[in-house]
Amino acid sequence: MAALDVRPVFYVIGSLITILAVAMLAPMLVDLAAGSSDWKVFGTASALTLFFGVLLLLTNWTPTITLNLRQTFLLTTLSWVIVCLFSALPFMFSVINLSATDAYFEAMSGLTTTGSTVIAGLDTLPPGLLLWRALTQWLGGIGIVAMGIAILPFLRVGGMQLFRSESSDRSDKVVARASDLAIWLGWVYLALTVMTTVALRFSGMTLFDAVTHAMTAVSTGGFSTRDPSITAWESDAIEWVLVVAMLAGGMPFVRFLSFAKGDPGAIWRDTQVRWYIGFLAVVSIALGTWLSLREDLSWYDGVRLAMFNVVSVVTTTGFASADYNSWGPLAIAAFLVLTLVGGCTGSTAGGIKIFRFEILFLVLKKQLIRLYSPHRVMPMTYNEKLVDNDIMLSVMSFGFMFMAFLLVFTIALGAAGLDLVTALSGAATALANVGPGLGPIIGPVGNFAPLPDSAKWILTAGMLLGRLEFFTVIVLMNPNFWRG
Amino acid sequence: MAALDVRPVFYVIGSLITILAVAMLAPMLVDLAAGSSDWKVFGTASALTLFFGVLLLLTNWTPTITLNLRQTFLLTTLSWVIVCLFSALPFMFSVINLSATDAYFEAMSGLTTTGSTVIAGLDTLPPGLLLWRALTQWLGGIGIVAMGIAILPFLRVGGMQLFRSESSDRSDKVVARASDLAIWLGWVYLALTVMTTVALRFSGMTLFDAVTHAMTAVSTGGFSTRDPSITAWESDAIEWVLVVAMLAGGMPFVRFLSFAKGDPGAIWRDTQVRWYIGFLAVVSIALGTWLSLREDLSWYDGVRLAMFNVVSVVTTTGFASADYNSWGPLAIAAFLVLTLVGGCTGSTAGGIKIFRFEILFLVLKKQLIRLYSPHRVMPMTYNEKLVDNDIMLSVMSFGFMFMAFLLVFTIALGAAGLDLVTALSGAATALANVGPGLGPIIGPVGNFAPLPDSAKWILTAGMLLGRLEFFTVIVLMNPNFWRG
Repeated sequence: MAALDVRPVFYVIGSLITILAVAMLAPMLVDLAAGSSDWKVFGTASALTLFFGVLLLLTNWTPTITLNLRQTFLLTTLSWVIVCLFSALPFMFSVINLSATDAYFEAMSGLTTTGSTVIAGLDTLPPGLLLWRALTQWLGGIGIVAMGIAILPFLRVGGMQLFRSESSDRSDKVVARASDLAIWLGWVYLALTVMTTVALRFSGMTLFDAVTHAMTAVSTGGFSTRDPSITAWESDAIEWVLVVAMLAGGMPFVRFLSFAKGDPGAIWRDTQVRWYIGFLAVVSIALGTWLSLREDLSWYDGVRLAMFNVVSVVTTTGFASADYNSWGPLAIAAFLVLTLVGGCTGSTAGGIKIFRFEILFLVLKKQLIRLYSPHRVMPMTYNEKLVDNDIMLSVMSFGFMFMAFLLVFTIALGAAGLDLVTALSGAATALANVGPGLGPIIGPVGNFAPLPDSAKWILTAGMLLGRLEFFTVIVLMNPNFWRG
Repeated sequence: MAALDVRPVFYVIGSLITILAVAMLAPMLVDLAAGSSDWKVFGTASALTLFFGVLLLLTNWTPTITLNLRQTFLLTTLSWVIVCLFSALPFMFSVINLSATDAYFEAMSGLTTTGSTVIAGLDTLPPGLLLWRALTQWLGGIGIVAMGIAILPFLRVGGMQLFRSESSDRSDKVVARASDLAIWLGWVYLALTVMTTVALRFSGMTLFDAVTHAMTAVSTGGFSTRDPSITAWESDAIEWVLVVAMLAGGMPFVRFLSFAKGDPGAIWRDTQVRWYIGFLAVVSIALGTWLSLREDLSWYDGVRLAMFNVVSVVTTTGFASADYNSWGPLAIAAFLVLTLVGGCTGSTAGGIKIFRFEILFLVLKKQLIRLYSPHRVMPMTYNEKLVDNDIMLSVMSFGFMFMAFLLVFTIALGAAGLDLVTALSGAATALANVGPGLGPIIGPVGNFAPLPDSAKWILTAGMLLGRLEFFTVIVLMNPNFWRG
């Protein structure tokens, strides 16, 4: 292997930062219109970001951008770390004056579409900051979709090789393919966001709330403009619109493309979508029925409450329409487990993801049958593709990486002084990019602000690791990766 | 496949029950000597057990006992369920008058060498019952060793095919081999127990306490004769003797055979033993050093406390020499994770077990390297045996089965009304056959008696599933298994 040429890596990062600088103009204009002095903060942050972006573009210019395997790994992790750095600027220098730790936490939580927040008093914040929080999630969301469709299958991380198409085998096409797809998917994403905005507006939200919540629902991010999240509106219509938007955000986006191209059946033919919808329906209805009995609600209200919060957690959005901490031990244990599940791959959702459970289920079934019929031949397929040993081991390794980090992060958060429920649910919610944890501090009606700085940095690292599916980051820690 | 002939299965179970009936005479004699009326209970239980044992032997007699694959699966699960049933009799009808639920829980906890107890007031119990609790663990322990060496490798459960020897491939040799090995290992087991008894006696325990604690230490069971477990003695010497005994109980017993046959180096050449000892040393010293700073103890006292409790939990014994619940969030999170680790395979220990972590580590390492060197060939070996895809998938499937049951049992215990810490640590301690959980109820100074019956049955099922390494039991749930 040759020494790593980092120029194309920094060139791509330069263009990402330049886009970020342009995005900062939106909250600037909003604050200017609202008469908030924060418009200057966004203007300065935008200028500074633009300066570094253009600097990177100029100093790393190459006539054609081609990325090999190692460069793509480096790009994936580094771009996320650096974009978060610049996204944190407005949080540090605006009226809320966050510490560097808090600002970076909030930026990472935004761009990874996690949705854990350290900011209290959202209701009194100038609109620019609220829009910026929503924008980080919205931009992060489309980045995740592009990464999941074009980059991770090429890197063959965690069984993602199942989603390789022919062209993603050719390394020189990765960037071209990524930008090509990103544009198409960008339109799908924009269309979903606009439709959600319109639906929320008609359901009674202000235009500003409708836009920001559409952004954070479709990106399965979960930042809200109000401290009590969606409970603030007490509107069934708004909740149902958001359920549909979150569901869409957790679906494989390429299926929407097939839909737009005139093949609506493609969505339901995807086994991942069937399991995803089936799982959510069964869990929501079961939990909702149980809840209606326990809390003496009508069956409709029980299912509505359960479905909103189950969909919110499983799609890794993290909006709250109720404090499920108060639903008793069964619900608490269930939500801890649901935190890990995740949505479909190729969506904006995080977590372990549905297709991995499908593969795991296939492997376990095969293992069981082999115990008493050792010689039976059982080829396994997923969406009509053969699942070979390589994919099985890759998927299972991902699962173990997730569990190993869950345990290590729980211990680390324990060392930072967090009680077991906060530590465990905090580790789970960060690694799965969900948002809220469990318990009185970081639960659905809580806030991450009171945590010690050490815990915030651990959670920040967790959000990054989970979002980039572990292997992408860890591979960089291996000295052999860097050797020429 | 032919219809399942259950006669040899019930014949073997008949002989196990007959042994159990004979074992019940020991507590009878002890109670007779101590003047406790419970001697009649043990006498009656023994007679009843003997009656059923002999009945099974007579009605299922076959000239030669050969067991095929399916019969061996059935035997493994069924024998444990039935032996527990008869072992529970003395608990139900003695002076403590346990309910059927409590008695079966205590018997399962004993025979699986878990060590969770529903009996409070041990200090005032007649000696027969105390001896019977120790005996169930001691008998369970040797059963587990024999099962781990002769039966599970033949069943190829959870990667145990790594430990097949040539003769275990021949199904007709299983029983012969099992009894042959069991006799040899029985001598090793007896020698370890006698040595521990002598050492404990010299360290200041009464002969009765020395015998019972030797039995429950070598079997990594953890039942004590006193409510506060080992804290009651406040003796460094006793703690160190028990540390060595628990360590021995968690080692692969075939290595002791090699030792006895004049090859002491065989123990240390086993990679599993090196990792086991290394892991325990590192964790104990790190936690002990941290504890000595936190609790303002001498370094020696910190390490002593940490080592006893770490060894106790990792070997899945479950003696307590301190309430580590009071050591703060780091220790609590650490002990939750340690609960899952387990000892070596082929020992009396439960849990996920060290060799599986070694295989997992190999797989993860290979996966990481493959990400940036996709074409490198990396054959993996374990103790000089090739680790093929089959073994990797089998080991990883075991890991997922463990995690899946951990999550399902946590939810089930939540549904039974247990708080999250009790539910999660209860599920972990049952599945890994450790003994104590975390939190005020089932923690190291707690007791399982206050739990609702539903939770006790869930935990009983968990102990059985964990002890039989999941697949052995689940395979019986598959209708295809039963089809001729």
